[in-house]
Amino acid sequence: MEFQVVKRCKSSKARLGVIATEHGRLETPVFMPVGTAGAIKGVSPEEAREAGVEIILANTYHLYLRPGHELIDKLGGLHRFMNWPGPLLTDSGGFQTLSLSKLRTISDDGVTFRSHLDGSTHFLGPEKVMEIQRALGADIIITLDECAPFGADRSYVLNSAKLTEKWARRCLEERKDNGQALFCVVQGGIYPELREMSARGLVSMGFDGYALGGLSVGEDKPTRENVVRLTREFLPEEKPVYLMGVGTPDDIIESVKMGMDMFDCVMPTRNARNGMLFTHKGKLIIKNARFAEDNSPIEEGCACYTCSNYSRAYLRHLFLLREILSFRLTTIHNLYYYAEFMSEIRQAIRDDRLAEFSHDFYRGEAESL
Amino acid sequence: MEFQVVKRCKSSKARLGVIATEHGRLETPVFMPVGTAGAIKGVSPEEAREAGVEIILANTYHLYLRPGHELIDKLGGLHRFMNWPGPLLTDSGGFQTLSLSKLRTISDDGVTFRSHLDGSTHFLGPEKVMEIQRALGADIIITLDECAPFGADRSYVLNSAKLTEKWARRCLEERKDNGQALFCVVQGGIYPELREMSARGLVSMGFDGYALGGLSVGEDKPTRENVVRLTREFLPEEKPVYLMGVGTPDDIIESVKMGMDMFDCVMPTRNARNGMLFTHKGKLIIKNARFAEDNSPIEEGCACYTCSNYSRAYLRHLFLLREILSFRLTTIHNLYYYAEFMSEIRQAIRDDRLAEFSHDFYRGEAESL
Repeated sequence: MEFQVVKRCKSSKARLGVIATEHGRLETPVFMPVGTAGAIKGVSPEEAREAGVEIILANTYHLYLRPGHELIDKLGGLHRFMNWPGPLLTDSGGFQTLSLSKLRTISDDGVTFRSHLDGSTHFLGPEKVMEIQRALGADIIITLDECAPFGADRSYVLNSAKLTEKWARRCLEERKDNGQALFCVVQGGIYPELREMSARGLVSMGFDGYALGGLSVGEDKPTRENVVRLTREFLPEEKPVYLMGVGTPDDIIESVKMGMDMFDCVMPTRNARNGMLFTHKGKLIIKNARFAEDNSPIEEGCACYTCSNYSRAYLRHLFLLREILSFRLTTIHNLYYYAEFMSEIRQAIRDDRLAEFSHDFYRGEAESL
Repeated sequence: MEFQVVKRCKSSKARLGVIATEHGRLETPVFMPVGTAGAIKGVSPEEAREAGVEIILANTYHLYLRPGHELIDKLGGLHRFMNWPGPLLTDSGGFQTLSLSKLRTISDDGVTFRSHLDGSTHFLGPEKVMEIQRALGADIIITLDECAPFGADRSYVLNSAKLTEKWARRCLEERKDNGQALFCVVQGGIYPELREMSARGLVSMGFDGYALGGLSVGEDKPTRENVVRLTREFLPEEKPVYLMGVGTPDDIIESVKMGMDMFDCVMPTRNARNGMLFTHKGKLIIKNARFAEDNSPIEEGCACYTCSNYSRAYLRHLFLLREILSFRLTTIHNLYYYAEFMSEIRQAIRDDRLAEFSHDFYRGEAESL
């Protein structure tokens, strides 16, 4: 993987970059939709591509449990398995052992946990996580981290950050020269000095990119923004920085201004399945009765497949009946919205008008809400 | 609507026909997938078309209840509402008042029933059914019929057939010169003389096509085939005949030989959602453990989107997780299988080798089962 910064914003730390992988090239800032189990829920790879998706995040935790990384390896790797020829990123599974599994116990060597699917006991250590991600074959893989639960006290977070650093080193040692880019995860909770410690330690080892973990887990927005801003200071300018689990369009735009390059979140896809649609004038709840006879598209002027072919009235009808097609059509729109939004952000950086773009964005949102 | 028989089979009553509607032309024998509420569950209109679908059946009963025919009319009709520019057929709703609704009571004027959705009381009479179907705007519409429950005694079935004839006449009187073809429904249960009576009565009024109703409701296959064969004798050669609710590939091929031109059934779509896939070598149950590591497509040589891009192993994985994409990919394959199957039947009629085709079909099925 190669990363190059091609333009820097004059009014903020935002930058326009290019990531080149064996499976294609993409521009940053970029948003990565989540394809948890090897599929973006409800849409085909071709549709995702048509909606502007350039890179998909898949979850190591889920794929390890089902159908198993060895099986995917045997069948030719994750790209082929899920029919997505473009860039892929897999996470380390560390976060899901916290958020999904039961009875997580942590040792120096890794995490023992019970599967949320069948209660079976599993162990993920740094070496294992590298083996799994090598088998899956994503273009970007991530070191095992320990994500401290929200509200953990300082000493827990300190130990957690140290352990994350130790595991990152073991992942680095386990790394093969197979073309996969390796990102590490900066931890340290909401404590500035722990974030600095974590960042400095990891940067000294040298990774292809740096993820910010342990955020969007319950802290408030100013706290998160503060952590992002100060952590960025300790990360190298020439490497991509990935803010994990973020977020809403306004969180993304603020994070871009703080130098974040990559984002992922289940929001556009999950909210779509719940009938919440993104527009440039705020959120639209498709089941709302006022759309019952509305023959206009979700958003006037939107060029997505859904807006090009279906009315709000039809989408509301399908949603109320829980028709399978409903989830798909709403997901396509939200994916398109996010891809367009990122594309607009990149264009604004290119044209030196990010501040103006940001101002217009908030004004548009405010108009309708 | 125009219908023309372009070729007759020498060894059976099968025929190759052409139906021309304002929304396109199609060849018969044809299979119509079910798009109950204005969507084939899980697939887009473009996908359905790509899978070979030429005409979709939508259910008047469902669309009347939700979102309502007046709404669909206001929004430009069903074709536009569901984004399907091709031929559409709507049924009369009579069958669903039997199969789905509660507390059905029948009078000379129509059917009073309770919605299966919310228990609300509704009335469907012949004039109402014509009004609803006019508002929906399908290319082919159907007269209200009374489908006798399976096992009903002869006198019930006799009255039911008489009522169906009376309602057909009222539908005919209600008909507008708006380009919609009007089919009636032959009833009479499993009683040959009642089927003859029903057919003769309806034919004397003159409809654009004749549907055979009240079959596939519980009777055995020889009984059904006997009814189909003898009823066909009393229907005009120059009109299309539609065998409602049939069926499996072997039921279809036998019915084609008896002169049936049109078919509908939820089987390809519903079975797909349950993981049952049609192949030329019999049925394939995708969740079967022997497909866990199977990198081959559902059916070798199948040109559908699913078989062109995904392995049995991936489809099994998605199915076990109940991923939305699963239902779609399996549905696409089954729709394609049915469309291909009908296309092969038509080609066999064209080439005067339907008997041979039928023989090969059963041999293929037997090989694998």
